[in-house]
Amino acid sequence: MKNQPFSFEIYSKKIHENMSFFLNQLPNQDQELIQSIKYSCLNGGKHVRGILVYLIAELFQVTSSNVDKIAISVELMHTYSLIHDDLPAMDDDDIRRGQPSNHIKFNQATAILAGDALQALSFEILTQLTIKPHYIIRLIELLSNSVGTKGMCLGQSLDILNENKTIDLNTLKKIHQLKTGALFKSSILMGAIVSGDESKKYLNSLSHFGETIGLFFQVQDDILDITSTTDELGKPQGSDQKIYKSTFPSLLGLDEAIVYANELQEKCLFIINQLPGNKEKLIHLIKILSKRKK
Amino acid sequence: MKNQPFSFEIYSKKIHENMSFFLNQLPNQDQELIQSIKYSCLNGGKHVRGILVYLIAELFQVTSSNVDKIAISVELMHTYSLIHDDLPAMDDDDIRRGQPSNHIKFNQATAILAGDALQALSFEILTQLTIKPHYIIRLIELLSNSVGTKGMCLGQSLDILNENKTIDLNTLKKIHQLKTGALFKSSILMGAIVSGDESKKYLNSLSHFGETIGLFFQVQDDILDITSTTDELGKPQGSDQKIYKSTFPSLLGLDEAIVYANELQEKCLFIINQLPGNKEKLIHLIKILSKRKK
Repeated sequence: MKNQPFSFEIYSKKIHENMSFFLNQLPNQDQELIQSIKYSCLNGGKHVRGILVYLIAELFQVTSSNVDKIAISVELMHTYSLIHDDLPAMDDDDIRRGQPSNHIKFNQATAILAGDALQALSFEILTQLTIKPHYIIRLIELLSNSVGTKGMCLGQSLDILNENKTIDLNTLKKIHQLKTGALFKSSILMGAIVSGDESKKYLNSLSHFGETIGLFFQVQDDILDITSTTDELGKPQGSDQKIYKSTFPSLLGLDEAIVYANELQEKCLFIINQLPGNKEKLIHLIKILSKRKK
Repeated sequence: MKNQPFSFEIYSKKIHENMSFFLNQLPNQDQELIQSIKYSCLNGGKHVRGILVYLIAELFQVTSSNVDKIAISVELMHTYSLIHDDLPAMDDDDIRRGQPSNHIKFNQATAILAGDALQALSFEILTQLTIKPHYIIRLIELLSNSVGTKGMCLGQSLDILNENKTIDLNTLKKIHQLKTGALFKSSILMGAIVSGDESKKYLNSLSHFGETIGLFFQVQDDILDITSTTDELGKPQGSDQKIYKSTFPSLLGLDEAIVYANELQEKCLFIINQLPGNKEKLIHLIKILSKRKK
């Protein structure tokens, strides 16, 4: 195993299989709600948040089924946010991961309810962990914080309210920290907390890593929206420009945005070096992310 | 206190004040998302679910701030469901509690996000309880179960899919058990679990009570949609008929539906008598509910 190069795909496939198993165990399989949930969860995402859960847990030598469940939890939460973000009242995106968005494939009511139910499932699966109860509560607290009024929902709300406006760079960073960074950060911290007290003294570095990789990922997304094709992205290219949205390239220029992304990548690698354990896979993940086309 | 007649209003006011205090502590008060959340949470609901948490906890002599928080939790969850149910893609109701619905007062995107954030807050507040951690996890498990694919979201999905169809009585009962009964039941069980092991041997009766009062409440809602006025209801009278929905009166006839509601009321009182402690307030609550006009 040690000499085998780390492959992004192995983890992504594992997460897909675990999610599939979990969702197939739910009652009411014939219901449209369940079909709609499975449609969006099992349509080939990258599972970066789930992979981060694994890689961080591995730093602390944890590889239990608890980690599997935490990875599912953050991916269910992420999928709920994508389904709701795509709704006509939000970003109005008809295509997601190269397929019709949930509300196009099904309908808006089902898409809203699938997102709602996914959020509940994301918390529910954490209650099934076999770690010490107070750690489970800490995980749920972290996750809920990263989703609600201090995280993703506030970020998405600010993002929409600032459409067709030019905002300054700090406001843009704040929006993306909330919209994307918060769940990245909680995924990373959740992957650490499953190890118990082992990770305690690294929580600051891990938080910092979470914020930085979240921003790195978002700056890249903004760049890819310009430089990739619709085919590569699996969603319409140029969608940020269609409804005028301030992005890192629109505020900094494309070249400067690319420089900024590179700086963030270096910063990620710098922070990773402060973490314990074998950091090879994390470093490799950053390199794979830096080359992504979608 | 013992000789003072139980007043529904005292509890409702207490819940309103506690929710107001909790929501006013959130950061980002100036944000539209927070304003929209406060608008829907603090617009004078009945707080029946929260009141049930208190009355059940009192059966087991528990009256701590933990109970306050559980009551807030179930009310936040209920409010999220109302905001999403009112959306144009769902029940398309412009008025709620005599005021413009959230998406009319704000906009659809904000209403979707306010609902999403409320669900997260509802779980978050439970992580702040000071009871034994494994009871907190049990509460979160119960609540998540009652909301997601085995509860409220599935019920609402079935409700919408069966619009403009005539369904049989058992299907209608199933839909309402999921849509309304599940959160009633979990509110009741959550009010019991806060007492710790005290309530263990009553969980069956409490579940049964939750299912029955949930159904009672829903049959009444269907009847009130016909017999009350828009002013009394605080939402448009006759809205079930506008988009043809199977209801208890439409399947049984109004008179039979009233007989059925009375039977369910009697059944509630019968089950209450199997519970421990001073049941006076619970009995009074059922009587007050039986006379409600909204």
